[in-house]
Amino acid sequence: MSTLPTPYYLIDKAKLLRNMEKIAMVREKSGARALLALKCFATWSVFDFMRDYMDGTTSSSLYEVRLGREKFGGETHAYSVAYGDDEIDEVVSHADKIIFNSIGQLERFQDRAGGIARGLRLNPGVSSSTFDLADPARPFSRLGEWDAARVEKVMDRISGFMIHNNCENSDFSLFDRMLSQIEDKFGALLKRADWVSLGGGIHFTGDDYPLDDFCARLKAFSDRFGVQVYLEPGEASITRSTTLEVSVLDTLFNGKHLAIVDASIEAHMLDLLIYRESARIAPNEGPHRFMVCGKSCLAGDVFGEFDFPAELKVGDRISIQDAAGYTMVKKNWFNGVKMPAIAIREIDGSIRVVREFTYADYEASLS
Amino acid sequence: MSTLPTPYYLIDKAKLLRNMEKIAMVREKSGARALLALKCFATWSVFDFMRDYMDGTTSSSLYEVRLGREKFGGETHAYSVAYGDDEIDEVVSHADKIIFNSIGQLERFQDRAGGIARGLRLNPGVSSSTFDLADPARPFSRLGEWDAARVEKVMDRISGFMIHNNCENSDFSLFDRMLSQIEDKFGALLKRADWVSLGGGIHFTGDDYPLDDFCARLKAFSDRFGVQVYLEPGEASITRSTTLEVSVLDTLFNGKHLAIVDASIEAHMLDLLIYRESARIAPNEGPHRFMVCGKSCLAGDVFGEFDFPAELKVGDRISIQDAAGYTMVKKNWFNGVKMPAIAIREIDGSIRVVREFTYADYEASLS
Repeated sequence: MSTLPTPYYLIDKAKLLRNMEKIAMVREKSGARALLALKCFATWSVFDFMRDYMDGTTSSSLYEVRLGREKFGGETHAYSVAYGDDEIDEVVSHADKIIFNSIGQLERFQDRAGGIARGLRLNPGVSSSTFDLADPARPFSRLGEWDAARVEKVMDRISGFMIHNNCENSDFSLFDRMLSQIEDKFGALLKRADWVSLGGGIHFTGDDYPLDDFCARLKAFSDRFGVQVYLEPGEASITRSTTLEVSVLDTLFNGKHLAIVDASIEAHMLDLLIYRESARIAPNEGPHRFMVCGKSCLAGDVFGEFDFPAELKVGDRISIQDAAGYTMVKKNWFNGVKMPAIAIREIDGSIRVVREFTYADYEASLS
Repeated sequence: MSTLPTPYYLIDKAKLLRNMEKIAMVREKSGARALLALKCFATWSVFDFMRDYMDGTTSSSLYEVRLGREKFGGETHAYSVAYGDDEIDEVVSHADKIIFNSIGQLERFQDRAGGIARGLRLNPGVSSSTFDLADPARPFSRLGEWDAARVEKVMDRISGFMIHNNCENSDFSLFDRMLSQIEDKFGALLKRADWVSLGGGIHFTGDDYPLDDFCARLKAFSDRFGVQVYLEPGEASITRSTTLEVSVLDTLFNGKHLAIVDASIEAHMLDLLIYRESARIAPNEGPHRFMVCGKSCLAGDVFGEFDFPAELKVGDRISIQDAAGYTMVKKNWFNGVKMPAIAIREIDGSIRVVREFTYADYEASLS
């Protein structure tokens, strides 16, 4: 057990390696290229390590595309729901390809993006999302063009497409069915494209995912339309690689046993709050059940209820599992709670802290 | 109309002044003291201005209590759901009073907090919250002590209490009823206290709030128990003082007219997402209805649907109303979307930018 002061995110390279090796295998077997989705994970201290297994990065803003270019390298895709006039030139300067969210954005910026490959986001109207909030196919979605006839008219200005309609999808047959729907709906357009990004949200690095079937499906898609396929794994790249290490600060009994720890879901694992989900701990076994709560003022700042081998007491440490995706990129200074440091466990087991946050960072977050 | 590049938060001192004057009036008429709740608003560039109307600050962490002491001054209350052993001495060094969330925390730290006034948070088991997430009286709440008999035993170690069970409560009669319940439940304890903080969440600076009744009620409470009353206005201090100024980057029609702007609810007005609420614009009148959407990748990044006098077009500016409370303190780098600058409109109408955020800030938010 580390003696680093909590709280800190701990990225374990040995665990990250398992995902990287699966991604590299998928690239080799399917011919698809894999770009890290920075919106999910952008902790650039491990990019040197990830670079050997992935082709580059994809982005959702100017700052992300610049980070991808400068810190990761390789192929650098630019996408954003909307670019501004004052940022498009810099975006283009960092990118190999730029994917516009709408025909309006394409038309506005096609000349200024003339030197790199241009693409459009398509919205197939189906998705795997179980959350309306995160469903790109929700009614009146602003994410991508839906009408093949409208897209047809701008085909001379683009060379490829991005379609992102998976979301934590661990069901290969659902992925397969939705891809068939995409083939049916947009087949004529895809035949005229050079490349197609299938986006992220495909949980292909999870246990028991049928990787051979997945690779065969990607290859068949690529062959049928004559396109270079891209994948944009976010969560799949970093799943189960990282923990949030916390300590118990107080214990209470209020009808249930409660333990308050030195972190907060709202500040440090925001998606648990937004999607009303429970954190995970491992092994989560034993006769002592505790509700593990954050230290912010929010009444609902609760990591979840878990089983422990012994009663929790002040000073005990808990490892919150699966704390890489959409955590560090969304952390914030709510309540001025100390921001967890970021540490990396190297392959040899040694741990180094790559970022600590101080009062000066908090003060400078405002003005 | 300002020509500052969007996005930016614009704090308008003239609007802030309306709240400050009401707070000062309540202080004078009721005898209560008013402490700014930094968890809601901590943009310290306007503290010089607010200081003339309020007594000091209250806090929910080490960093907040330090900010309150160093940037605001006056009375400085320390509270946290749980303090750590490694921070308590510094917390005490910045505070006049420290309010512990539990008897456990009081007993752990009473000696180290021996030089300042100590108090406990009481939980009356009733609240005005309509959101379970934000309800301090929710089942198994960790916020404060519920059992008067247990608190009775530690009365020799404390001189006061904090009770925070209002939440955006604009209904005086509900405040009045809940205060009566508190008197009934904890009256014997209150009689032995020197001071009682009634927390925040009382929307007494809103239009038509019966300020005279409110002041009389506070004074009656103070007189009955012989205590100095504190209020901890957060939202009430800054309500309707601030806008988030954004520009339209793209317009779409997908069954509804959509406008995408250069900000994001998740990154810049997080509570709209957490509580699934709509933003406000003013006047919100006209024949052209648009859904105003953020530029993050989140499908549900939607400010709301509003009516405009003319069709929105790229470059149009929109002022999102009421953007001071729980916005700047929770902003984050989701998607690497450019963080809004912070600007202040002085009483004379001039505008100065007090903080701009750059790519370097984004890069340094990770490692």
